[in-house]
Amino acid sequence: MNSEYKKLEEQFRDINLLGQASAILGWDANTYMPEGASENRGEQLALLSKISHQKLVQSDIGSLLERATPENDWQKANLRCMKHQYSHTTCLPEKLATELTLASNTCEVKWRKCRAENDFKGILPELKKVVDLTMEMAEIKSSKLGLSKYDSLLDMYDPGRRSADVEKVFSVLENFLPTFINEVIASQPTHHPIEQNFPIDTQKALGKHFMGLLGFDFNKGRLDESTHPFCGGTPDDVRITTRYREDDFFSSLLGTLHETGHSLYESNLPKSWRYQCVGEAMGMSTHESQSLFVEKQIGLSNEFIGFLHPKIKEFFGVEINPQTLRANLQQVKKSFIRVDADEVTYPLHVILRYRIEKALIEGEIQVEDLPEVWNSYMQKYLQITPNSDTEGCLQDIHWYGGMIGYFPTYTLGALTAAQLMAKLKQEMPDVSQKIARGELKPIIAWMTNKIHKHGSFFLADDLLKNATGEFLNPQYFIDHVKNRYLAKNK
Amino acid sequence: MNSEYKKLEEQFRDINLLGQASAILGWDANTYMPEGASENRGEQLALLSKISHQKLVQSDIGSLLERATPENDWQKANLRCMKHQYSHTTCLPEKLATELTLASNTCEVKWRKCRAENDFKGILPELKKVVDLTMEMAEIKSSKLGLSKYDSLLDMYDPGRRSADVEKVFSVLENFLPTFINEVIASQPTHHPIEQNFPIDTQKALGKHFMGLLGFDFNKGRLDESTHPFCGGTPDDVRITTRYREDDFFSSLLGTLHETGHSLYESNLPKSWRYQCVGEAMGMSTHESQSLFVEKQIGLSNEFIGFLHPKIKEFFGVEINPQTLRANLQQVKKSFIRVDADEVTYPLHVILRYRIEKALIEGEIQVEDLPEVWNSYMQKYLQITPNSDTEGCLQDIHWYGGMIGYFPTYTLGALTAAQLMAKLKQEMPDVSQKIARGELKPIIAWMTNKIHKHGSFFLADDLLKNATGEFLNPQYFIDHVKNRYLAKNK
Repeated sequence: MNSEYKKLEEQFRDINLLGQASAILGWDANTYMPEGASENRGEQLALLSKISHQKLVQSDIGSLLERATPENDWQKANLRCMKHQYSHTTCLPEKLATELTLASNTCEVKWRKCRAENDFKGILPELKKVVDLTMEMAEIKSSKLGLSKYDSLLDMYDPGRRSADVEKVFSVLENFLPTFINEVIASQPTHHPIEQNFPIDTQKALGKHFMGLLGFDFNKGRLDESTHPFCGGTPDDVRITTRYREDDFFSSLLGTLHETGHSLYESNLPKSWRYQCVGEAMGMSTHESQSLFVEKQIGLSNEFIGFLHPKIKEFFGVEINPQTLRANLQQVKKSFIRVDADEVTYPLHVILRYRIEKALIEGEIQVEDLPEVWNSYMQKYLQITPNSDTEGCLQDIHWYGGMIGYFPTYTLGALTAAQLMAKLKQEMPDVSQKIARGELKPIIAWMTNKIHKHGSFFLADDLLKNATGEFLNPQYFIDHVKNRYLAKNK
Repeated sequence: MNSEYKKLEEQFRDINLLGQASAILGWDANTYMPEGASENRGEQLALLSKISHQKLVQSDIGSLLERATPENDWQKANLRCMKHQYSHTTCLPEKLATELTLASNTCEVKWRKCRAENDFKGILPELKKVVDLTMEMAEIKSSKLGLSKYDSLLDMYDPGRRSADVEKVFSVLENFLPTFINEVIASQPTHHPIEQNFPIDTQKALGKHFMGLLGFDFNKGRLDESTHPFCGGTPDDVRITTRYREDDFFSSLLGTLHETGHSLYESNLPKSWRYQCVGEAMGMSTHESQSLFVEKQIGLSNEFIGFLHPKIKEFFGVEINPQTLRANLQQVKKSFIRVDADEVTYPLHVILRYRIEKALIEGEIQVEDLPEVWNSYMQKYLQITPNSDTEGCLQDIHWYGGMIGYFPTYTLGALTAAQLMAKLKQEMPDVSQKIARGELKPIIAWMTNKIHKHGSFFLADDLLKNATGEFLNPQYFIDHVKNRYLAKNK
């Protein structure tokens, strides 16, 4: 190992460990921390972030990255990942980075109030500032990284992903879904809501039971509660959360499955590359593919619902009609709120946001236009109009918190998950029977082999090609929803 | 504020915040962290400690400390505290510091096994190494700090404390206690053990009820469980723990009161000096005085026991004879294990350890002699002989974990607490009635005014003189135990 490369590994190890410490402190802030400690915690996290940033920009990393000569493919990939992190961080003037952080924090805090009060005008000045600074950032990154402005943002969340590829798959979905959704809704059985009390302790127990079946290692991870479910912590200490409502077991169940999917990716990352960039997960679309694979591909399948049915009886002592259970879990519905959307309408919520944020960054629309543009896309895609901006362009935290370029990864993840499931069915012909019996570990082992263990060795699309023989192809998702949601197949 | 001093404040602020981050991560490691994550957590903590150490030794702090000119008494005291931390850290060669850390870790891990197996011989090589390295450290510190070897260790845990002062008070106790203990035991009522089940949830509720009466702010702190109770976290996010046994309510209650005492010191430290050395607690003897003040001076008083009696009935629905309750809580007993000892015999357990560790460091006895010397002191002080080293010189983690010079602070804390209570009784004549009514907040407010709010402005003994008009005087403790434990006063 040459000494430049070795030195880089040492420096990035520290940066990685600082990120891990922050991740645990962040988990605590969202679970057990008393409310009055938030300012104090903010000071600690700001310092760790400052030290990490200093380690990256003030050391000799730049010249080491130039001179390092990796000795094998993993070192080479590690160097690629280091360069990615380095260039995204150092290409920005510190002043701009600080301004953007401050503006995003201010905007996010005010957004909570404005969303509650349906006051888009109220948040306009702050949102404008965030968008202006993000455009400035995109311009600089664009010229330094040789990417389009929007791609330079997308590349932060999903390294190597380009909007040309996104466009290709999104335009297919955009053509297919609106008509398909109407077909599904016309043909699906009437929906009988399940009105039942599910004691929270039992929800927890059943959630943990499924986590166990999926191979979650409670010796190296935990399940807790938080207002917004998330997967945090570190690969050897993975912390997932969910939230519970006594009248709704399915939201905690699906939330738990979703975060467990994320957690299995983390804990099965390559052990010999712990604390190195290449040992980390490969971007947000791949991460989301893992959560959606467990939640949607497995969790909403007829087989899993068949397996779930007697478990509900066993744990809650409640008999639910199997058709009712399936109709509830697989219901397709035109609705306003993305996070509550089913998997069929969900991509349209995402494509709408993608189209809008891209147009914003490219200067084709103005922040003031958001409500109007939003509502016209909602009409076009779902033929519904929000009753308020709270149900429209005010609903998501992302833009207000400075995350522009993130939205596409949700749907890219859903497509990736469908493509992986199609491949799994080829390679493991009895996968449906396995799911029906709750034998989930061999499925996760397959996924570890295909995805988890590779860390960031490949870029997302190469990783998928390596796993399935094909780059991202939306047809698998289309086949999946046709198969699951069209009445004739049910 | 001159620029050197200002720069020092900035540097030490970072060091303080790194310590805070480690404190929260350490709390997590002892409460919620899954066991399999301990190696991972060790890496994170080692890095934070390394960065903190580097900030102290590699920067220009040394020359800034020379040149800084504080502008008021608080800045002057802050500079004194900075110098203390700096000189204790930088006077050691890094190699020795690392060796000592490694040797202590190794020894501590093996000690757990050897204690369980009563195998003092087994741990001898590791303990010898720890003691040898500690002696080397003491020699270096001694010459650089101008202190005796033992004092240079004591000064790490209780800045400014010297063994000459310790000797003075310990020799008084050493003369007084052995005879006094025999008198108390001969005259105390027969002990009827309380055999009762105390549901743990109710223990928690009652513990929190008392914390509330003492003014613990649950918006800036938490109570959790851990194997060994402790007070951790930060002044604005103080985390205390206790442990529960269904057949023993009093150990969780007294543990909770003890840690609450520590926590009130932390949370009432001067707000305007947060993140600065002078804003931190003043050494371990003062810290222990605060926990023992709440646990022993308040918690074991006749008045508090009288207040506790109906609470037990109210919370557990159990009627305990008031005499039995008091006899249980105030029982004096010769026993082998320090952590289980009552407040009357406790100082002898400490003095024994102080005499032994001092002789070890001064080369007057050898590590091999420990069991024999230990047992001869036990005979001398308490006229009992341990059945095994597990009940003798293997019982405490301190020496095996590299903490030599710490033990005196427990008893110095107990004496300080007694002296503070004597002063409180002068200044607040109805303090007994207040305790009997559970009106504890005015008492804590008095203590905040006397101790908490001063942070490290004074050295421990000056702080006590400022609070009570007198330096540490063991007579207050002697009067206290005479008054509480001699039958004629009961």
